[in-house]
Amino acid sequence: MAETKDRVLIAGATGYLGRRLVKASLALGHPTFLLFRPDTASDLARCQMLMELKMEGAQLLQGSLDDRDSLISALKQVDVVVSTIAGDQILQQLKLVEAIKEAGTIKRYLPSEFGMDVDRMHHAMPPGDKVFSEKRIVRRAIEEASIPHTYISANCFAGIFLAGLAQLAIFMPPRDHVNVYGGGDKRCIWVAEEDVAMYAMLSVDDPRTLNKVLYLRPPANILSQMEVIEIWERVVGRKLSKTFISEDEWLSQMDKMPPFEQSAMAHFCHIYYRGELDFEVEGPRGVDSSELYPHYKYVTAQEYLKRFG
Amino acid sequence: MAETKDRVLIAGATGYLGRRLVKASLALGHPTFLLFRPDTASDLARCQMLMELKMEGAQLLQGSLDDRDSLISALKQVDVVVSTIAGDQILQQLKLVEAIKEAGTIKRYLPSEFGMDVDRMHHAMPPGDKVFSEKRIVRRAIEEASIPHTYISANCFAGIFLAGLAQLAIFMPPRDHVNVYGGGDKRCIWVAEEDVAMYAMLSVDDPRTLNKVLYLRPPANILSQMEVIEIWERVVGRKLSKTFISEDEWLSQMDKMPPFEQSAMAHFCHIYYRGELDFEVEGPRGVDSSELYPHYKYVTAQEYLKRFG
Repeated sequence: MAETKDRVLIAGATGYLGRRLVKASLALGHPTFLLFRPDTASDLARCQMLMELKMEGAQLLQGSLDDRDSLISALKQVDVVVSTIAGDQILQQLKLVEAIKEAGTIKRYLPSEFGMDVDRMHHAMPPGDKVFSEKRIVRRAIEEASIPHTYISANCFAGIFLAGLAQLAIFMPPRDHVNVYGGGDKRCIWVAEEDVAMYAMLSVDDPRTLNKVLYLRPPANILSQMEVIEIWERVVGRKLSKTFISEDEWLSQMDKMPPFEQSAMAHFCHIYYRGELDFEVEGPRGVDSSELYPHYKYVTAQEYLKRFG
Repeated sequence: MAETKDRVLIAGATGYLGRRLVKASLALGHPTFLLFRPDTASDLARCQMLMELKMEGAQLLQGSLDDRDSLISALKQVDVVVSTIAGDQILQQLKLVEAIKEAGTIKRYLPSEFGMDVDRMHHAMPPGDKVFSEKRIVRRAIEEASIPHTYISANCFAGIFLAGLAQLAIFMPPRDHVNVYGGGDKRCIWVAEEDVAMYAMLSVDDPRTLNKVLYLRPPANILSQMEVIEIWERVVGRKLSKTFISEDEWLSQMDKMPPFEQSAMAHFCHIYYRGELDFEVEGPRGVDSSELYPHYKYVTAQEYLKRFG
């Protein structure tokens, strides 16, 4: 008898991570549904993305977080919900949490997380703390509603952090010069977006991740910034010149930046100066992707950087 | 002896049509080079697109229209140049024309055209005439410099015109209601973007298209708006309600719209009210894709709309 795979609804399916989640969900054989708002019809790029994902096998459901009936109707068709609703929309997920509670049939909800573990970041510095505190509000609402869940702590997205060798707002590796944070020696964890999506989708029907934080920790990708720079230097066969920036210098530049960059700089400080991704996974809430999915073939930092070489 | 395919440089490779041109060029076996500006490194989506195209086999060349040396250096590595530099950047191509003239080795240049045949649109109404007159300026510069060229007249991009059943700024087919222009009976030509790209790349080393206008005219896609609506009605198995809008009504609404929509509305008027895509291809300058490439399997309007069904 063929195994029946959980049906998955993805909210935010045309977004940066969303479209990769759709592909991962389809690759794992889940009947996959995409929630799209009526006003998406005016967005050429999103329409083309939806059509492309539909051609790959996804099913489209029109709906909106502001239209409770459409939401409940969509939820009745699926077992699992994954959200990538991000940016200034994070708290909009509270409407989704309410609807999931009302529907009462959802076996697993993965809220929009996919970064640092927000319950470890109560001390985060402003303005980077806002995203953490909002995600915590969503977590607490999920838990109060007794909704089965998994929180994915994805650490550093490769496209955003690794591709630019952790340069602020640079997304391809520089070939001449690089800024290094402190001694560049704090261990970080770099994960390709397609792997974030695949680990997330591997977790949705895994009893071991029920009501847990799943930390994505591909062993070969637990590397300091300097180790990453050295990998790139081997790829291009040359040494980059380096400017070493102290934490004080870094923080003193924050004020001059626009709000979005200020948040990013605050996060960089926690990650690259204070090494706050470098911890041991602790039970009973935490589980480690490398223990749960040791055979999954993730993209190594070296393979990722070679793509640009 | 293996045939050596012309080497192709694409300017605007991460854009809407550009990325499809890269895929078509690679599919046809052309060594394919992408010109990207240094500041692209700050654009996450473009960086990821470049990396994806590179993984498919394209080669990246850093350069800029404002950096003559980088441009000449890129041109020395290729035989053919295809540009999709659009919007308010069309006249920037004059720098490319100058560089191609200076390099003196380019066997074919396809400037950014891919719409209506601009030399048939001297009478176009404002503000939609601006794009036509700018493209004409580029044409005349190419001809004055005696640069071998092909102009691709692609008619109506499917994603922009067909996907929304020719509704202004709607890019997926409506399921309830549709506006019809006049009687909806003027014949238009709808071409899927992937086919625009493939026809363009088929033309780059074709002696029959040298110094010609190549009109893309897939025979099954020469259809009126009403015919297109009827195809969609058959796909979804229901009739849509229709509002028939007269030309006077349409034009009277233009003033209230923002500039971009005003241009689009002017183009709509030429296409859907005045039927200005409905003409016979005339020699000696014009050639017809359906005569040159009769065996190429293009996406029919019906197949395209079924993607949304």
